[in-house]
Amino acid sequence: MILTVTLNTALDITYRVRSLRPHSSHRVSEVTERPGGKGLNVARVLAALGHEVTVTGFTGGATGRIVQEQLTATPGVVDALVPVTGPTRRTIAVVDEGTGDTTQLNEPGPTITPAEWAAFQEVYEDLLPSMAAVALCGSLPPGVPVGAYAVLVRAAKAAGVPVLLDTSGEPLRRGVAARPDLLKPNADELAELTGSHDPLRATRDARRRGAHAVVASLGPKGLLAATPEGHWRAAPPSRVPGNPTGAGDSAVAGLLSGLVEQLSWPGRLARAVALSTATVWSPTAGDFDCTAYEKLLARVSVTAA
Amino acid sequence: MILTVTLNTALDITYRVRSLRPHSSHRVSEVTERPGGKGLNVARVLAALGHEVTVTGFTGGATGRIVQEQLTATPGVVDALVPVTGPTRRTIAVVDEGTGDTTQLNEPGPTITPAEWAAFQEVYEDLLPSMAAVALCGSLPPGVPVGAYAVLVRAAKAAGVPVLLDTSGEPLRRGVAARPDLLKPNADELAELTGSHDPLRATRDARRRGAHAVVASLGPKGLLAATPEGHWRAAPPSRVPGNPTGAGDSAVAGLLSGLVEQLSWPGRLARAVALSTATVWSPTAGDFDCTAYEKLLARVSVTAA
Repeated sequence: MILTVTLNTALDITYRVRSLRPHSSHRVSEVTERPGGKGLNVARVLAALGHEVTVTGFTGGATGRIVQEQLTATPGVVDALVPVTGPTRRTIAVVDEGTGDTTQLNEPGPTITPAEWAAFQEVYEDLLPSMAAVALCGSLPPGVPVGAYAVLVRAAKAAGVPVLLDTSGEPLRRGVAARPDLLKPNADELAELTGSHDPLRATRDARRRGAHAVVASLGPKGLLAATPEGHWRAAPPSRVPGNPTGAGDSAVAGLLSGLVEQLSWPGRLARAVALSTATVWSPTAGDFDCTAYEKLLARVSVTAA
Repeated sequence: MILTVTLNTALDITYRVRSLRPHSSHRVSEVTERPGGKGLNVARVLAALGHEVTVTGFTGGATGRIVQEQLTATPGVVDALVPVTGPTRRTIAVVDEGTGDTTQLNEPGPTITPAEWAAFQEVYEDLLPSMAAVALCGSLPPGVPVGAYAVLVRAAKAAGVPVLLDTSGEPLRRGVAARPDLLKPNADELAELTGSHDPLRATRDARRRGAHAVVASLGPKGLLAATPEGHWRAAPPSRVPGNPTGAGDSAVAGLLSGLVEQLSWPGRLARAVALSTATVWSPTAGDFDCTAYEKLLARVSVTAA
């Protein structure tokens, strides 16, 4: 069983409109909704790969109920979300059918009380002993202390459970210092953490700051890994057109599943790149195309860096 | 007791963002939610005026539950909404804090099945005998026949209950032919119905098409009434700055309450103009400022047209 933590869960809503023009009125032609927040996306990909996953984090209000209803309908996903008083946030992606571009509106998320944060930590520590790995994913909702991920990393390490951290800004900076097993930043997050825009230098620097291994996602260029066993670049066979939403979360799922299945580092990286490329390729944002994934897996190049 | 019908109820969500730029990502700084759809807005104003109101129409899904929770918390409002399978729509108003302008995104609403439409008609006919007046408000959700308002107007007339119609397009055209007691179009709806952009001519023409009386809302210019007892213009004392959202619904509430209280036509028109002007003036979209309303009431001019 793998555990994913999403402290700022969301209901991701996508609207299609003919053409988005500010300060006018639009009829939405199509509405789609699904559970969101990085850890829930990771869980969905892990479940599609055949892994059993438990999801935890916070859920509240009417949007939280929708998120939970849809989650429990996903085979392989166990709901261990902790109820809170504030409502789970919505994110709205407005797709302009003319240009194909997306405009994003993100609600801030509910304010978490100290008692709710304490209740979550108790649930998390109860879950840890039965987990093969844990992923800590995404932003912190208001009210959760900025050092939250450092606390959760330490608890995982104390329980002997490998822990992956995927966040940004100050929560990332604090979390790294607690020495997670694996960090999965994108290029911007890595530059913000280390001050270096050279990914090769920055991944090594992030390891010095405390991460046991670092796998940076470099968009269409694939992944760059700095680990105690070696340094690698993993790249897709060619640049694919599509929507990059969720590609990073698919990479996290690839790395986590590879870790649990005890694949070699090159094997894990190939899987992560194939999954994230198949996610970009998929017509539905955040889903991955299974056939594309299997074809890509054999064609990802993994080379020493 | 007054009845308002809202076939396409909504959850009206307002987002404040620093500056809306298409094709970029925005952090929403403030989220507000409330029950919406014209008939629910009318009901809220009637309740604030001290009238007892029953609301009916359709409600469904998680958004429908939020609408009902908030409605039942409003003193003076009785919930007689009919449950449907499809989810109640959301409308999103994105307010740009820089310019103050609003960008509107409106979901289409649930598709109503023939059985759900039949169930609604039964509830409506059961409610009618205990009502002093009924208002039929807003657009039709998918699946409801375009002649729906004509059917509902005829049922109200058969029950001897005065009926006000406030809609647009083909549902308005069909509804007028069923001879409602009062029509409340705005300038655009009136022009679309009659083909005339001269409000004086168009209000008279709308009466010839079947409406017993017509009160057109002409934005900041106030109201123009064509009735069997005479023709009037009612205008606010001066142009007020503010948000016109909900001003038309406040005018409907003014006309309906005046009808039930057996005010003279000039009395009803003065109340409707004072309420809609106080709504524009109010800092919260769709609410009215009570003090402003009472001050304005004495200063509205009603003259023969």
